[in-house]
Amino acid sequence: MPEIIEKQTGKAFRLKKGQKLKVIDPQGEQVSDMVLFNAEDKREKISSGKTLDFEESILISQGNFLWSNRSNKMMEILKDTNGRNDFLLAPCSPETFRIMYKNTEYHPSCFENLYTSLEKFGIEPDDIPTAFNIFMNVQFRPDGKLSVDPPMSKAGDYVLFEAKMDLIVGLTACSAEDSNNGSFKPIHFEIAD
Amino acid sequence: MPEIIEKQTGKAFRLKKGQKLKVIDPQGEQVSDMVLFNAEDKREKISSGKTLDFEESILISQGNFLWSNRSNKMMEILKDTNGRNDFLLAPCSPETFRIMYKNTEYHPSCFENLYTSLEKFGIEPDDIPTAFNIFMNVQFRPDGKLSVDPPMSKAGDYVLFEAKMDLIVGLTACSAEDSNNGSFKPIHFEIAD
Repeated sequence: MPEIIEKQTGKAFRLKKGQKLKVIDPQGEQVSDMVLFNAEDKREKISSGKTLDFEESILISQGNFLWSNRSNKMMEILKDTNGRNDFLLAPCSPETFRIMYKNTEYHPSCFENLYTSLEKFGIEPDDIPTAFNIFMNVQFRPDGKLSVDPPMSKAGDYVLFEAKMDLIVGLTACSAEDSNNGSFKPIHFEIAD
Repeated sequence: MPEIIEKQTGKAFRLKKGQKLKVIDPQGEQVSDMVLFNAEDKREKISSGKTLDFEESILISQGNFLWSNRSNKMMEILKDTNGRNDFLLAPCSPETFRIMYKNTEYHPSCFENLYTSLEKFGIEPDDIPTAFNIFMNVQFRPDGKLSVDPPMSKAGDYVLFEAKMDLIVGLTACSAEDSNNGSFKPIHFEIAD
């Protein structure tokens, strides 16, 4: 049975080196923001800039590695049945909804769901890096303009990761309307040795 | 007279809110990596993920703002005579040269030049975020593949920034062969009220 991340929430957990994490979109068109920390030293964490540099691509999928700010491999992507993820945009935050959505009321966000889930590991809001946004469909044009389009993931699509070091993982079911085509849904995950 | 950052080195300095920083490529085809910290609280710093999100573009130039991890504006780009900068790739580091250039000997790097310059402000290597890479010409293809091409900047090209808060700025003359077409050159800068 998979673990369930209810809509607009998050979870954080340990993942041992060599263990596999399967992140599943159970209903389709849902995004999951993932951040990674070295379990032995939380100052080492997932880095978009290092990953795009070493993998020489904006689009990170099956066969790619996720790298840390200290230039170490944190995860390998063993399988990606959907094939589209984003590693450009920061997790949606209260300010995302205030500034980009012109929303003046409280709105759940991946940023809040990440830092509240990760608090038990001593991780604070300022420690949250740009996340690897699983299933997120950010299109870029030749002139650089970005658009957040509905995910292309279908019910049952998944990404399978293998930990390359002992990790603390933060994972969400995304709270942003643009990221999941306006409907909030859960994310499932499984851990295997 | 401009301040001079000698080839393959870096400098760090304070910039007050409202002050302007002009970063000049004096000979052409040279890159300058820039990182920013809130002078009052160094845990607030420049964020590629937040900037690309709020500016809705990979390519950041005249008219755009540089944003922090706390969703505040750190700088505005008032003028950009070249028009091409990169905000995807992490500063070149010893591992960049070991892993990507297959270089087994010591090599100066923007990462080292940033953290050694910023040490006097209490900033440590792990605090260095993905830099705004002024004049860096990273081309992206529709399939996401990235290539680091020679800068398009010509002698005298500059980018003019205005600080939107009190800042600590780290700035380099880039040490990576791919970034500056194989020739290491200085970077100049000027600060004006």
